[in-house]
Amino acid sequence: MDQANKDRSLVSKVMDGLVTGIVEEKYGAILPPQDVLSKEFDVSRTVMREALSMLLARDMLDVRPKIGTRIRPMSDWRMIDEDVVSWRFRAKPDPLFVRDVIEFRSLIEPRASAQAAARGSAADIAALREAFEAFRAIRPNEPGYQEADELFHTRIVIASGNQFFKQMAAIIRGALSTVNPIVNQKEGAWEGAVSARQRVVEAIERRDPKAAEAASLAMIDHTAEEMGSTLSEPPPVRG
Amino acid sequence: MDQANKDRSLVSKVMDGLVTGIVEEKYGAILPPQDVLSKEFDVSRTVMREALSMLLARDMLDVRPKIGTRIRPMSDWRMIDEDVVSWRFRAKPDPLFVRDVIEFRSLIEPRASAQAAARGSAADIAALREAFEAFRAIRPNEPGYQEADELFHTRIVIASGNQFFKQMAAIIRGALSTVNPIVNQKEGAWEGAVSARQRVVEAIERRDPKAAEAASLAMIDHTAEEMGSTLSEPPPVRG
Repeated sequence: MDQANKDRSLVSKVMDGLVTGIVEEKYGAILPPQDVLSKEFDVSRTVMREALSMLLARDMLDVRPKIGTRIRPMSDWRMIDEDVVSWRFRAKPDPLFVRDVIEFRSLIEPRASAQAAARGSAADIAALREAFEAFRAIRPNEPGYQEADELFHTRIVIASGNQFFKQMAAIIRGALSTVNPIVNQKEGAWEGAVSARQRVVEAIERRDPKAAEAASLAMIDHTAEEMGSTLSEPPPVRG
Repeated sequence: MDQANKDRSLVSKVMDGLVTGIVEEKYGAILPPQDVLSKEFDVSRTVMREALSMLLARDMLDVRPKIGTRIRPMSDWRMIDEDVVSWRFRAKPDPLFVRDVIEFRSLIEPRASAQAAARGSAADIAALREAFEAFRAIRPNEPGYQEADELFHTRIVIASGNQFFKQMAAIIRGALSTVNPIVNQKEGAWEGAVSARQRVVEAIERRDPKAAEAASLAMIDHTAEEMGSTLSEPPPVRG
């Protein structure tokens, strides 16, 4: 085993030890300073720094100036590998991939919308309205359009209060980056997108889960139809 | 920036370059040898090896003796960070977490079961039946029980043919590792688990999507009830 691999496996071991301590609530809210941890695990400060940076990258920790390294709520821990998601969506979309991602969105977003209506906090719903107003103020050919739409959809899954739905935001954003450039070429697409989103927001604000679910499904179905007429249909049975 | 950070950012850059080449189908099915790639990217063999090992760990590549490093189908690329998932499930489950994971499973598994019935390949359905028979042959207190149940549920999402559902297998396995030890304490739990799974398999074999969806939902609802009577109810509205 060469030095690089030796360091790698040591970093993994330290990460595992840190996580064990965290899930057993050994440290409380703030991790001890790096040099204390290095001594506790009997490793160099470089190895400890690397292990901590791997946990930071996964949204498990954050560094607060003057306070220290805070342990983030477990519901924030990033289960999705955002690199892989963005690579996957960078490839030219094939019909089967588009079918799969639309199927997945059609499952997650309507339920998340219903949950947002049923139990979203007032603050989360206000943030969703704000994201909708920002989206409505930008045209598809203007800078920031894609980001505004991604924020809108992200806030729906956040408002659902379900940490697994929230984790799926990265996949939904990837899906939007694939479908929006295609859907927006159509005449009247923007007006359709705005009114579809408006129905979702209003149903959530009215605290009407069924209407929110239906409006969300209609929003995605509309996209699926537009995509379907652009890409050839996928085969019904796979090999 | 110290040497470790410099190497890290170089590895990221090389990974990105490799992925760009892969998604642009520059390499075909097999990557060029490591030393050719090191020259192409003008980096040391250590840096190239590290970048390749990061892609290997994400199921993007596999190494075939005598053939070389094969690029795996994009649908295999691992979007889920299995480390984080397993860490998350290692923590003592709180009621809100259990609620969220059951909600998530109740959404994914029934739809995956329906899709398996509608379009699963004969080979995938045979593999599901095989996993069910293996599960039925083991009692909860015997070694291999948990693994057998995890394989059964994994094969449902594989048979769905949807690459996103398949990616969620890691979360479903985590959920099972949390709920099984609790549910299996109950009298008659095993018999109930076997017959619930049997109804799912049979509906999929009959190619009956509606029955498969209903059987899958019943299987999860049963678990949710058992969990509900063990853990206290989660609050209906979060903070």
